[in-house]
Amino acid sequence: MGYDLWYWSGIPGRGEFVRLALEAAGIPYREKTGRGDGDAALVKDLAKSRPDPPFAPPYLVVEEGLVISQTANILLYLGEKHPRIAPRELAGRHWVHQLQLTLMDWVAESHDVHHPVGMDLYYEDQKPEACRRAEGFRSKRLPKFLGYFERVLAQRGDWLAGGKRWSYVDLSLFHVVEGLRFAFPRRMAILAPDFRRVLALHDSVQALPELQDYLASERRLAFSDGLFRHYPELDGED
Amino acid sequence: MGYDLWYWSGIPGRGEFVRLALEAAGIPYREKTGRGDGDAALVKDLAKSRPDPPFAPPYLVVEEGLVISQTANILLYLGEKHPRIAPRELAGRHWVHQLQLTLMDWVAESHDVHHPVGMDLYYEDQKPEACRRAEGFRSKRLPKFLGYFERVLAQRGDWLAGGKRWSYVDLSLFHVVEGLRFAFPRRMAILAPDFRRVLALHDSVQALPELQDYLASERRLAFSDGLFRHYPELDGED
Repeated sequence: MGYDLWYWSGIPGRGEFVRLALEAAGIPYREKTGRGDGDAALVKDLAKSRPDPPFAPPYLVVEEGLVISQTANILLYLGEKHPRIAPRELAGRHWVHQLQLTLMDWVAESHDVHHPVGMDLYYEDQKPEACRRAEGFRSKRLPKFLGYFERVLAQRGDWLAGGKRWSYVDLSLFHVVEGLRFAFPRRMAILAPDFRRVLALHDSVQALPELQDYLASERRLAFSDGLFRHYPELDGED
Repeated sequence: MGYDLWYWSGIPGRGEFVRLALEAAGIPYREKTGRGDGDAALVKDLAKSRPDPPFAPPYLVVEEGLVISQTANILLYLGEKHPRIAPRELAGRHWVHQLQLTLMDWVAESHDVHHPVGMDLYYEDQKPEACRRAEGFRSKRLPKFLGYFERVLAQRGDWLAGGKRWSYVDLSLFHVVEGLRFAFPRRMAILAPDFRRVLALHDSVQALPELQDYLASERRLAFSDGLFRHYPELDGED
């Protein structure tokens, strides 16, 4: 067995949240999108007639007739099937899922900073709008989201679900911090002293023995022009 | 027993997706936000110290120590507890959940049409940007999302999960169509002939006997300046 994971090639994107969970838990999977040969196979697979078509990647083909899509839904599914990566009881499952959904909202907002007018347009064609949007994102939204996760950790301890062990949502928060540091290095450095618990969680995930192989491998893609992008004019100290 | 539902007063917003499911299934709940007396109680409750704080409304207080937040997560929870409103088996549960998450993405995009630069700013302060964003939303995103749900219904039949009975995601799609017709009446009228299955589902939900009381009641709030807003300059035939 083993899952087939479909995602756009060349960027970590939303696929990375799924990859981190699969890799950290040692769950076998096949990356179905070729690296370097474009996304033709993905586009073809997306158009395939099936009873459960995904709207967009990432999606996980579990077996013929069982396709799970939407990032947070994939992680929810994996958490049910592989209980080491998520709480087992009902309250805990819905708790980490709601945190994951909140992370996905944060990620979508981070993306829209560089594409406020339209995802089909080039960044260069919406640069003034992006600069305006980035101001509010840096000054209000970043502290709001960081503050929320800081507050949760103050209640729960080292990991977002509580307890002694990571769950998939900790891996996702690690990746969001990585992405935001890539995209907004100046702002994130200024904010760091106020969000020590979030950054400590980031460092704990980065040091997990079960992630070392993956993080050092070529499978871990670098940020470039995907969800998280670094445009110096969108960053700033306040 | 009975759930406590917290949401901003005065607008249907994201709370409406939860309300429709509770009302159609006849599940008892208390609306915790006063109508007309502002949102002070909600703001206070949001700030309360608890092990599972919500990031934002809507949220459902099931009991002390069990708070479910994020709209799609609330519906997932309700579907597990009240199996008449969602498929019971694993594949079906994840299927309607992914559709609900796709609807929530669509709703977020619909909102950002009138607030492309910042949700803290007035519409009047981002009107030119909104007009630019609305073009792509009307010409590309609306047909893409409508086309996706049309394709699903072509595969599954009258309801999004298949089968002979509605699930919560059908109620949500009904409400999204209502909201889009309110916000973009000219564009939705032009698109109508291409998306007959989606519109037939809308009409079927609107005619459900179990929703008639609610839809005719004062509990069903009118659209105004919430998620879906009607600004004539953002609408158009193409």
